[in-house]
Amino acid sequence: MDRVKIAVDAMGSDLGAGENVQGAIDYFSDSVGPVEIVLVGDEKIISSELEQRGGMNLPISILHAGSVITMDEHPAKALRAKPDSSIIVAMAAHKKGLVDAVISAGSTGAAMAAALVVLKPIPGILRPSIAVLLPTLKDVVVLLDAGANLDSKPEHLLQFGIMGSKYCEYVLNREKPRVSLLNVGAEEAKGTETVQKAHKLLADSELNFIGNIEGMDLFTGDVDVIVCDGFVGNVILKIYESLKDFVTEVIQRAVAQSSLAKLGTSILKPAFSDILIQLDYSKQGGAPLLGVEGTVIICHGNSPAKAIKATIRNTYYRVKSDLNKHIATSIKDYVE
Amino acid sequence: MDRVKIAVDAMGSDLGAGENVQGAIDYFSDSVGPVEIVLVGDEKIISSELEQRGGMNLPISILHAGSVITMDEHPAKALRAKPDSSIIVAMAAHKKGLVDAVISAGSTGAAMAAALVVLKPIPGILRPSIAVLLPTLKDVVVLLDAGANLDSKPEHLLQFGIMGSKYCEYVLNREKPRVSLLNVGAEEAKGTETVQKAHKLLADSELNFIGNIEGMDLFTGDVDVIVCDGFVGNVILKIYESLKDFVTEVIQRAVAQSSLAKLGTSILKPAFSDILIQLDYSKQGGAPLLGVEGTVIICHGNSPAKAIKATIRNTYYRVKSDLNKHIATSIKDYVE
Repeated sequence: MDRVKIAVDAMGSDLGAGENVQGAIDYFSDSVGPVEIVLVGDEKIISSELEQRGGMNLPISILHAGSVITMDEHPAKALRAKPDSSIIVAMAAHKKGLVDAVISAGSTGAAMAAALVVLKPIPGILRPSIAVLLPTLKDVVVLLDAGANLDSKPEHLLQFGIMGSKYCEYVLNREKPRVSLLNVGAEEAKGTETVQKAHKLLADSELNFIGNIEGMDLFTGDVDVIVCDGFVGNVILKIYESLKDFVTEVIQRAVAQSSLAKLGTSILKPAFSDILIQLDYSKQGGAPLLGVEGTVIICHGNSPAKAIKATIRNTYYRVKSDLNKHIATSIKDYVE
Repeated sequence: MDRVKIAVDAMGSDLGAGENVQGAIDYFSDSVGPVEIVLVGDEKIISSELEQRGGMNLPISILHAGSVITMDEHPAKALRAKPDSSIIVAMAAHKKGLVDAVISAGSTGAAMAAALVVLKPIPGILRPSIAVLLPTLKDVVVLLDAGANLDSKPEHLLQFGIMGSKYCEYVLNREKPRVSLLNVGAEEAKGTETVQKAHKLLADSELNFIGNIEGMDLFTGDVDVIVCDGFVGNVILKIYESLKDFVTEVIQRAVAQSSLAKLGTSILKPAFSDILIQLDYSKQGGAPLLGVEGTVIICHGNSPAKAIKATIRNTYYRVKSDLNKHIATSIKDYVE
């Protein structure tokens, strides 16, 4: 079986190259399939990290890149100024077919812009979209758009639904994914004109569209795909980011309030940490950028090695899924 | 000292007239100021409830209304079809000066529409707004708009900021309330064109505008006012609604996972319920409709007596605050 070649942008994340390198090494401790990892960035830094961490005899190679785009740079400007940046070098390698996918925990804006410029959108796709996998009380749910597209039009929202549905079907292996539209009420006449039109487009589509959902339905896990504009999607994503700390604080206060309760802390602590890890969306394995000609997974800027490892696993399945072919076929039906 | 006269729409809520009547009765068990309550709705039902619950000798009177607008009716149509509905009768009494405020746990849409039609907006106010008081890890924060205005323009968002700030200052007694704008990033150039323009209007205003906040800042309580469009505000409000159940479920699962942990449940349970009640925004005492010529507080459709009681207390302070005069004065500065 052919190895899946995955480029990992080793630079530009908040935690430094070490965590990315460690994540790559850790993948091979219990790999889910044959993978070759290409670490992209400063050769000296990466090889030193690889050596220190004992990753020299693994199927990991280095692709040198002379610069890095930092989190505080303007994405479009930085791309022009730094054609040798790790994210561009990684995307160019993907475009040339040298790797099958790109993972980056660097600047989201830069990764997104580089993907659009270098890889281009799938024909018919109006707006590629960042999807996020959010934990719920049941399975993860795919929410898109998570911030790439503010002010989405009805046609964009339809396409988010199509891409999310195909992702669920072919990458997460769910049959007839339940696609929902985030709105301010359950009835189809609710919401802005844009959302009402999107409701009609989704209802008329081939998707398994189950209608509107509201804010209180996010955690239940009764849907597979949540379609929304990138503004509200980004707010939700960041609420999720803060949820673990919030719940932890609530639990700590409850325990502190009662003197008897202190007895329970040491007993409950391990159980709570297990649950809280499940709440942590950064552990879910990166956010796929859907709708570009290639496989691009964007990780949170402070992704630890564990998250990078999980992302590499997901990316392996994603490459094997032929997702883009399914998206392209489905999109054709909706393009005049 | 003059009594504050508060009309409570006794009909149309999910839990029936009894809870509203009980809430009115309970107010007097530890009242915060001299209040007279006017229960509006079917005289027979209300007087029977009053009698059964032992509320006959309290400063509570009944104002008869021949019909009620239910939750599933279209607000504008229902208002035309039912001029004798409890919400219209209550608003008309307020307009005539017979009462100082109206509280309703009936249809939010109908209460909002009735307030706009009968009471009218404060001169200069473009869009009255529903504000909600959300619990955080510190004090409650005032978020507006919570769903009355979808597709808000920059000028609307500025006015939400002004109304929210005045509410904090004069009703919640906070000095120089910290007003924030919900956005997808901290920098002023982030977000849609509308939000960027709103940022500028807020920054140029007399308000204590502290800039953008993001989804992860909602729970921290480091701001007093959060300004956002009604679409995202409504989604957030409903996420909050589901938070108590979600956290409860998370705690229960953590406990269930560990056999040792079961020892801790009975000890921790009371402590958790205290904290979870604080999370429950429906207990915070109703959502003020800001920007109309009058005092209108909208309660959740399934508000128990406790919530109605809390709302009556808040409404007493609100009437005493002369909030609308302060809003009108401040708005004048921004109207050409």
